[in-house]
Amino acid sequence: MSQPHRTIAVILSGCGVQDGSEIHEAVLTLLALDRAGASYQCLAPNIPQTRVVNHATGAEVSGETRNVLQESARIARGQILDIAQAQPADYAAMIFPGGFGAALNLSDFGSKQDQCQVEPSVLEFAEVMAASGKPAGFICIAPALIPRIYGSGIKLTIGNDPDTAQTLEKMGVVHVECPVTNCIVDKQRKVVSTPAYMLAQSIQEAAAGIEQLVQKVLALC
Amino acid sequence: MSQPHRTIAVILSGCGVQDGSEIHEAVLTLLALDRAGASYQCLAPNIPQTRVVNHATGAEVSGETRNVLQESARIARGQILDIAQAQPADYAAMIFPGGFGAALNLSDFGSKQDQCQVEPSVLEFAEVMAASGKPAGFICIAPALIPRIYGSGIKLTIGNDPDTAQTLEKMGVVHVECPVTNCIVDKQRKVVSTPAYMLAQSIQEAAAGIEQLVQKVLALC
Repeated sequence: MSQPHRTIAVILSGCGVQDGSEIHEAVLTLLALDRAGASYQCLAPNIPQTRVVNHATGAEVSGETRNVLQESARIARGQILDIAQAQPADYAAMIFPGGFGAALNLSDFGSKQDQCQVEPSVLEFAEVMAASGKPAGFICIAPALIPRIYGSGIKLTIGNDPDTAQTLEKMGVVHVECPVTNCIVDKQRKVVSTPAYMLAQSIQEAAAGIEQLVQKVLALC
Repeated sequence: MSQPHRTIAVILSGCGVQDGSEIHEAVLTLLALDRAGASYQCLAPNIPQTRVVNHATGAEVSGETRNVLQESARIARGQILDIAQAQPADYAAMIFPGGFGAALNLSDFGSKQDQCQVEPSVLEFAEVMAASGKPAGFICIAPALIPRIYGSGIKLTIGNDPDTAQTLEKMGVVHVECPVTNCIVDKQRKVVSTPAYMLAQSIQEAAAGIEQLVQKVLALC
């Protein structure tokens, strides 16, 4: 089953659940890919973060700016590319870990809800991947990007939060409730989603769903 | 075998391999503890980082300061305590992930080598844990803390780097070469060490050694 030469793009949004990528979800994604025999390349947009949060208190830090690519590089141990420079042809699939960075930096879903847009360099990369029929995985709140990349009708999950689900349905997708240890697959568009820390009460719960998602994404390659 | 009520202290040093905790090692430690049925509490010193590094370029960022506790809280998803306020009696064991933060923030090993000291609040906590005979795990470069906490004679590994091994031996410990997927146990002092990213070529290699270390630490509890 192992296909060691396929490389999966993992798209990060910073480093920390409150203002960037959820770190556990990102690392668990890399671990699951590596253990499945896939290689990966982390990508991120080279843009300022929308906000910086003191993760010890939860308070926004006024006046501080950080760069999404530089902070994402912490998770990637320096091995990262600007998504604006990345070639979709180099990748067999793409996976978006969660964290508020997906709704603040990769898109403005966090403030604009169903009126949101995806960050242009991320959208351009993702649209080419989608148009090429390459599979994709979206974790936690990252499925909020799906309607703007794929259009309407796609089946996805963000767990069981009714308000977020309703907002996504306003954007034309079909929300399906899903337990944390599982994932939802839209076979036609090859889009896989899992709730992770939208529901997870522990890191092993998040890991179980992410392993499922990675297996499903690789199987669709 | 599962003992769900024991809590393990995981001592972080920031968030990022070049100036804080190595993120993969920290997350893999939390995952291994959770999967083994142990609970964990992340601790960090409430001090400024020694440096801030742009992880996309590897260059030090002059003039920027970050706080070790606040940055560590990113890995801990906000659930973190100042180690100066933590009670050693609350914990069954302690584990130190690696990353340069262990040699820059938890100690000054990175600049002082065999003349290094451990940060006072970290040393006070760790000395009480050691004196109580509670087991401990040290990952990657974190074994550099061992001589100052435990004194001389302890058996440990940092992989197979001869310069670092020689520096540690000058401090009175016994360095043992160890492959990345294994760990070294000093049974008398209940000190376990594993090379992780001192040697690892992939996240799954780091995970294999860290899982070994966590199992050994828990078995010594």
